Formats: sequence, structure tokens, C-alpha cells
Amino acid sequence: MVGAPVDATATEAWRRLSDLAAGFAPDLRGWFDADPGRAERLTFQAADLYVDLSKGLLDEAVLAALLDLAEQVGLTERRDAMFRGERINVTEDRAVLHTALRLPADAPAGQRPAVDGHDVVPDVHDVLRRVYSFADRVRSGEWTGATGQRIRTVVNIGIGGSDLGPVMAYEALAPYRHPELECRFISNIDPTDTATTLAGLDPATTLFIVASKTFGTLETLTNARLCRSWLLEGLGDGVDRTEAVAQHFVAVSTALDKVADFGIDPANAFGFWDWVGGRYSVDSAIGTSLAVAIGPERFTEFLAGFHALDEHFRTTETARNVPALMGLLNVWYTDFLGAETHAVLPYAQLLHRFPAYLQQLTMESNGKGVRWDGSPVTSPTGEVFWGEPGTNGQHAFYQLLHQGTRLVPADFIAFATPAYPLRDVHDGQDVDVHELFLANFVAQTRALAFGKTAEEVRAEGTPEPIVPARVFTGNRPTASIMAPELTPSVLGQLIALYEHITFTQGVVWGIDSFDQWGVELGKQLALQVSPAVAGDAAAAAAQDPSTRSLIEYYRSHRKARP
Amino acid sequence: MVGAPVDATATEAWRRLSDLAAGFAPDLRGWFDADPGRAERLTFQAADLYVDLSKGLLDEAVLAALLDLAEQVGLTERRDAMFRGERINVTEDRAVLHTALRLPADAPAGQRPAVDGHDVVPDVHDVLRRVYSFADRVRSGEWTGATGQRIRTVVNIGIGGSDLGPVMAYEALAPYRHPELECRFISNIDPTDTATTLAGLDPATTLFIVASKTFGTLETLTNARLCRSWLLEGLGDGVDRTEAVAQHFVAVSTALDKVADFGIDPANAFGFWDWVGGRYSVDSAIGTSLAVAIGPERFTEFLAGFHALDEHFRTTETARNVPALMGLLNVWYTDFLGAETHAVLPYAQLLHRFPAYLQQLTMESNGKGVRWDGSPVTSPTGEVFWGEPGTNGQHAFYQLLHQGTRLVPADFIAFATPAYPLRDVHDGQDVDVHELFLANFVAQTRALAFGKTAEEVRAEGTPEPIVPARVFTGNRPTASIMAPELTPSVLGQLIALYEHITFTQGVVWGIDSFDQWGVELGKQLALQVSPAVAGDAAAAAAQDPSTRSLIEYYRSHRKARP
Repeated sequence: MVGAPVDATATEAWRRLSDLAAGFAPDLRGWFDADPGRAERLTFQAADLYVDLSKGLLDEAVLAALLDLAEQVGLTERRDAMFRGERINVTEDRAVLHTALRLPADAPAGQRPAVDGHDVVPDVHDVLRRVYSFADRVRSGEWTGATGQRIRTVVNIGIGGSDLGPVMAYEALAPYRHPELECRFISNIDPTDTATTLAGLDPATTLFIVASKTFGTLETLTNARLCRSWLLEGLGDGVDRTEAVAQHFVAVSTALDKVADFGIDPANAFGFWDWVGGRYSVDSAIGTSLAVAIGPERFTEFLAGFHALDEHFRTTETARNVPALMGLLNVWYTDFLGAETHAVLPYAQLLHRFPAYLQQLTMESNGKGVRWDGSPVTSPTGEVFWGEPGTNGQHAFYQLLHQGTRLVPADFIAFATPAYPLRDVHDGQDVDVHELFLANFVAQTRALAFGKTAEEVRAEGTPEPIVPARVFTGNRPTASIMAPELTPSVLGQLIALYEHITFTQGVVWGIDSFDQWGVELGKQLALQVSPAVAGDAAAAAAQDPSTRSLIEYYRSHRKARP
Repeated sequence: MVGAPVDATATEAWRRLSDLAAGFAPDLRGWFDADPGRAERLTFQAADLYVDLSKGLLDEAVLAALLDLAEQVGLTERRDAMFRGERINVTEDRAVLHTALRLPADAPAGQRPAVDGHDVVPDVHDVLRRVYSFADRVRSGEWTGATGQRIRTVVNIGIGGSDLGPVMAYEALAPYRHPELECRFISNIDPTDTATTLAGLDPATTLFIVASKTFGTLETLTNARLCRSWLLEGLGDGVDRTEAVAQHFVAVSTALDKVADFGIDPANAFGFWDWVGGRYSVDSAIGTSLAVAIGPERFTEFLAGFHALDEHFRTTETARNVPALMGLLNVWYTDFLGAETHAVLPYAQLLHRFPAYLQQLTMESNGKGVRWDGSPVTSPTGEVFWGEPGTNGQHAFYQLLHQGTRLVPADFIAFATPAYPLRDVHDGQDVDVHELFLANFVAQTRALAFGKTAEEVRAEGTPEPIVPARVFTGNRPTASIMAPELTPSVLGQLIALYEHITFTQGVVWGIDSFDQWGVELGKQLALQVSPAVAGDAAAAAAQDPSTRSLIEYYRSHRKARP
């Protein structure tokens, strides 16, 4: 039984933080000068992740108050309740057990949650075995299409959590992909997405994975039908249509009747459970496309990475618990220093979709205005997460990070060993390009932290009228996250890190980080407005004047269709 | 001569806006009910763009005060100064004439700016003619590589403005691309970017465009050398190396000596001018890769689109001037209603990189803390721009837009005619998929504006404890932008729209939207820290303890290189 949420803003720790914020004068230069042990004391290890928080805007008093806040809102109790399998997703009355998706089959009793007394670990591994068997058959060429050819392209059809995780991880783990298999992803109901993704593919060697828990997601099922038509048209009359669909489509779904209606063999439907939210599901059967791409062995390492971070979060005291500390720090930035956004800046081109992935994870989880008991929150909640890979961002939006009027806490992520080492021979010098890249990584956090004073700018001979434009105030908070290499395990660790950061913030705010009622109204209205868009005059007349005029614009400006 | 900036916060209009904000109770339901003409009155046309601002959080009093603010800060005077070619980029002492890049060759005298008395239009068209001639030669197959084969892939090497614009436009205009030519883009100094972009390419049919105004950008020149090595290694010993470089590399640069040093024929270097900022340069020679992809005729249409919006901005009274109105509204949201971010949500998968493009345009322009005379700003400036295409965002971060605690003004963009029309036949119904897509577009802005009350939620039979979680407060501001179709011209119009919105905000804030001093310190420190990263112990010892420990982490965790 989950109790009522604590109102964090009514705690003693919150009041103390408010007092600290009122007199807060961040001074990273002074803090580092006065305290040679700052970097070491504020650097933490979680599995393979090395996390330096010392360039953040916190001092000992703030940290102590944040740790007290964690205790006063019951962070560890709620964490333990999650890991035990209690129904902490209150508004949907569900357990929250993405952590069970990555438990080893032989996990000790103390790690195994129970849902209504049922041990879910065997269920998880049953599905994994089926996913792995499927992946092996596709990878080996044993699985063939309707004309007997082996599969060369796997197209994942899904949206939201059924898309962002698989895409992001497929991109991130490019060096681990099967060399003769390509994955593509269709998500948007914009017909462009299906049309351009299928362009150039050979139906005879293309396999589709339709990922929709309910097998009823409008976007996904529409796209699945478009793909089915494309397949059958492309294969022509020489094949049995029923068999062709069965050979070229599998599903990630639990709605076996609808799967069968579509023409997919229910034996090729991989399920998951109501205790896995879409944005927490890349490590479930939703990751089937990834399992095909990188193979069962690497996928197992991916899961092990999540699990290593889970164990860190589950067992480490809050004062050294990296996701807890980062989540608490985000609360400090958000609720006391006024940050509205959080930048994630991977110095790894392979992570180019990681910020987009985190947008769903964080904003769908914590972009809420009521607590899990329905009471309104009394402080700002979820930030806008955003970012692009460094060094690209440096030449785009870093101007605002350095000299804008906003507080934008930023996570910098980098790896010691590059995925693709290259050397540049220039003017007789042999340069490791990855080292140039990392020089940018550390230089940026240094510049953000310590800035550049007017005196320093003048000392470079800058003309006086331009001096103010060249001053950097510094004291712009960053966290530096490093790992040895972007392996499947490390990627799993990074994802789990942000899952638990998100969880920590949700607990402080007392919100249900696992529901998403905010997506419902738009779906409902889209169905309601559809007839108006399609030309039904009565339906159009029922709209507000703005909506009506937009629909009229469409009706009067569209070109005739083929 | 450019005068001192007006302190907007000291104007009468600003005080009036502050008073209005203090008592502001947004009520879009009530406003629409009480005022049947609201939608029509707040909908505007700029060239082909149809812009509905009626779902924004403004009433007549706010609008009147914003128009007065524009007058009191001298928006039209500064706009006219820009178009005339005055040196409004004060901190760099330069004119700001991206609008001249798209003037027709026969533009009337009243439209032609002069830089120090010099008419720049003939210069612009000289370069365009050279770019078009090059594009035609590549497109026709007349331009061949070192082995006599025609070019199949054009790789643009650039970063920031030399990358984001070309990538974004190449993606957006996919239906207009030459069918047998592919463009790829290398930007990041992460060696992964070059390694993965070149993978699978044939050196004999690959042409590189090195885009760097100074031909000294660290990232770009490093990548250019890596590509040159790859080319020469791939072509082997049978070719003349000097000729091969000249046949496979062209430049967008004005540093002709450095271009020649690299091995590029200066006749194949396309220049631009110091009155074009990187983030305003996709319509200059920086767009060469795009000109190759879509051809001179379409590129000319692209420029004509910009010009149409320029003329709208230059000649329309503020009360009907779309970029001015949108910029003023952004100031209202930012400085009076507390918005820190701005979402751009294209309902067009082809615009998937438009938000990233706008991040540079807006945040590098207006992420500033001092005015152009060096005085500190006295209100918040540039917002964080972010977004992903709808409908994907609906299944990711819209939760926060609908129910979060943040005010996130959002621009919704859609087109009447799809790039790739598709029909879905389902249950005997023949559905135009683009109409489903547009139904989502209008449904979302409706849901954001009007929300759903507790009474409406209860009326659907929702159990009482869940009612608060299903309530949508509404009054979340959006702008809807529609156009007939995503043509080259319309894309140019959209870019110019945001350029002038950005300009308007910069004028109100009194900042120089055309410098970017905030990117300098990071570059400087990257060079300074490079030896430490490469193993120089003395250089490492000179770093702060946090930076030093990150470098040590790298040194001790990297794997041996090949």
C-alpha cells in the first residue's frame, strides 16, 4: 500500500534550502581555490561511470540540506518499494518494474520482486529467450522471406517508447551491429516517414517488427498497414499473401488476438507487462530490433549494464548514490535556483539521439502538475531536457550557455576510448583526433565554471568598448560523466542512470513518474476532429473559430491527390 | 552611425506590460467565447505563410502595449538600418546583410543596400553564378573525379552555420533532390563522424566541399585532412595526387591562400562576405551542397522565398508584420510571463532538423547578457529553442507541454499538401494518411489552448481520485503556421521568418544579435588544454583539480590505439 506523498515544500530541509538559496552567491573559482579537495570529494563512481559534480553550483551546506531532503521525503523507502514490486504507479494502480527486465535469471532472492506474490524473473527470461532465438535466426539467415531470401533489413514500426529507445541504442551501438543487416525505424504518421524509410528497400529481404503493446496505437498500426500493402505489392502475385505477411511481420505486443488479425503468427509476438512503461522499455522485447542488430550476447551485456546501475542505486547510501545525488541537484537547480531546462551534451556523435530519448524519459515522467494523490504540486517540476552532441553544439547554442541570462545546468558525457580512432598528420605533427575532441570536452566545462573576467579580457588587449561582450561570468553548472568506452554495458548504465535521476526527482516532487495522462486529450481530440479535416462540414462547424480556420486553410490549399 | 540601444525596460510600454502581466489571467476559452472575431483578427499572412496567433496568450491591451514597445525601442528604424547596410553588428563593426543574399539581380534601387557606398548585389550574383555553374557540372556528370567517373556523393565538411543550414535544408527538400546524387555531412571533430560518414563511399565518385570562411576552423580543417587522406589512400597510386585533390575538393571560403595550400584550385573556392554571419549563411555559397542537390532553379526559388519574407518584414506595418508580431509576443512570454523556452514542432518529418537549425539561429543570436553598447541587459534575453517533429513529440514530451508547471510557447508548423501522399485502406475505409496527421496538428493546439476541466473529466466517468491527473488546465500558448506545401520557396520563407523574429527580439533587448563572442573562450581553452590531454604532465598540473582529474581519467582508461 503506497501512502500519501510527502509535501517536500513543507519539510524542514526545503525551508533550509530556501534560506540557502536566498543568500546563495556561487563562486566556483573561490570554492576551488579555498578547497583543494573539492574535485575529489564531489567525484563519484557508479559501476563504470565516473561522475564529477564538482563544477556544479553546490557547497557543503546545500549538499547536506539536499541529503536531508531526500530523507524527509522518504527517497530510500520509495526506491525500495519500487524494487520490491509495489504498486507505486498509483494513478494506474501498477507496479513499476523496469529494473526486473534486467535481473539475471539467477538473481538472488533479495533482488527478485514479486507482483501479487508472483516472481516475474522467469517470465522476463522466457521472453528474452524467444527474442534471442528470433534474433539468432534472422542474423544467421535461417529466417527467410517469402521468396526464400535471407533478411537484410529490419524495419521497426513504433512510436514514443517503442521507437526512441531502439533508435537511440541502434545509433549508439553502431560499431556492434551485424555487418549485413540494417535496421530502419518508422514512427511518425506523417506519410513521409513510411515513404522515405521504405524507399530503396527490397520487400523480399525486409522484415517488419510492429511494436505496440495494445496493437492499437493509431500511428503504428496505420504505418504497419502501409508497410503490409507495400510488401504485398512488391512481392507480386507469385507468393501466398497470408504466408508472406507471416514471414515478413513479427510483433512486440501482448494483444495476441489483434496480432493474429493482422496476419502475424502469435508465436512471433513478443510480450511485456503492465509494469513496464513505454519510456522504460528499450530493455524489454521493445528492444527486439536492437537485439537483432547487435545479437543476444551484446544485448545481454546491455542488460547487465542497466543492472549494475540498478544495484548501485538500490544499495548505495544517498551521500554516494550517483543518480540520487544528480536528481537532488536537479531539484536544487530547478526549485531553488530557477533553472527551467537541462542540457545533455554527449561528446560522442554516436549518442546523437540520446537527448531526444531523454526528453521522453524525463519530461513524460516528471512533466506533471499534481502529486500522486491528486493534490497540486507546490513547486516547479520537470525541466525541459534538450541537447545536441559536442562539438556541434559549441558552434550552435553554447553562446547562450556561456553568456545568456538563463541558468542551464548541463551534463557533459565523454569516453576515454573512441569508437573509431583516427589520426591527423598535420605540419609534421601526428595528432590523435579523439584527444582534440576531449580537449574540447574539458575546455567547455572549465570555461563554463570559471569564466573570464573583465581584467583578463583587458589583459589580452581587447578594446574597452568590446570588453563587456567578451566577459564570461562563469558559475554555470555542469556535471562531467566519463566512462572507459561506449559499450553496450555502458549504454545500459547511462540509461539507467537517467531513469533513476528521474525517479529521484519524482519522489521529491511527490508525483507519479510512471503515468502519462497528459497524452490522452490530444489523442481523443484527434479522433474527434478527423471528420472535419476530411471534409465533414458539420464536424468543422463544431470547432472553435481558430481550429475551423486552420482546417479550412487545409481544405482550400491542398492539391488534388493521386 | 548606430546609436546607443534603448533600454526597453525603462520605456513607458514596458511599464504598461508589467502592469498587465501583474493582473494577467489568461482565459482562452472565455476570450474565444466572448469574441467571435478573435481568430480572424489574430491571423496574418506573410507571403505564403498563414499564421494564426489567436491561441496565444494575448489580449488587445497586451497587443497594443507590445506595438508601442516596438515603437519606443525603434524597431522599424533598426530594421531599416539593417536593410540599408549600416553597421548594426556593433561589436564586430560590420553590416548585417543576409537579406542581400537573396535580392534579385534586378532588384530596384530602393531594395539595394550599400556597404561603404558599394552595391553588393552584383557581387552576390557573381558568386551565385559560379556556384550554379559548379552545381550544373556536378549534376550533369560533366565534373568527373580523378579516374574519370562522375560524382555520386557530395560530402559537405563544415560545422555550425556551415553545417546546420545545409543539412536541414537538404533533409527538408528531399523530394527535390537529384535522384542520382547523395549529399552527406561531416561536422563533428569526434572521429566517429568522419569514419561513419565515409563508410561505404567510393573515393572515385566522391566530391568534398570544405566550408569554412577562414579556412581555419579546427574541426573542419581536421576533418578535411582526414577526408583527403582517405581519398588519396582509396584512389591508390595510379592517380596524380595533386590533381586528385583538385578534382575532389572544392571550398566555400574567402581565404584563397589557405585554400590553395590545401590543394584546392582557387577557381573552385566560392566566397562570401563579412556581412554574412555563419548562422545566416545557408542562402550564400555555404548552401553549395544544397544547390548541387536541388539544382540552380530550385535554389533560386529557395532564395526567392527568403526575399518574399524579407519584403514582408521590410514593408509591412508592425501591426500586421508577422515576424515582428511573433518576436514581440516572444518578448511578452519571456520577460513578462516567465517562459524560458520555446518549442518548435513541425508536423512534417522532413523538417526534423529544423529545431536544431533554429537553436543556432536564435540562441547564438540572442543568448547574450550585454547590450550592443556593453551595458548589462536588465531583463531575461534569448530563450532555449527546442523541438522534434509531431506526431513523434506527442508520444514523448508533450506530457510536459500539457500538464507540466512550465510555460512553453510552441510553434506548430504544417502543410496542406504532403510530400508523399499515402492512403490507408482499413475496415473498408479509405483514409488519407496526411489528414490523420493534420488532425493531430489541430487537435494538439486545441487541447493546449482549451484544456479539459475537472467537470468534463468527471462527466466521462473517471473515478474521483484520478480526476486531478486527467485535468488539463489549458491556456498553453501556441502559434499555428501553415503553408500550401513544403517547397524550396516556402522553406526559405520559414527560415527568413525566424531570422526576423530573432532580429525583433534582439532589437527589443538592445543586444547585438550578430556577434558570438561566447564561443571564443571554449576554443581558446581547448587549444590550451590539448597538450595536457595528449600527456604533457606540466600542462596537466596547470589545470584546476576537476579538469586535471578528468584528463587523468582519460589517460588511465584509454585503450591502446592501432
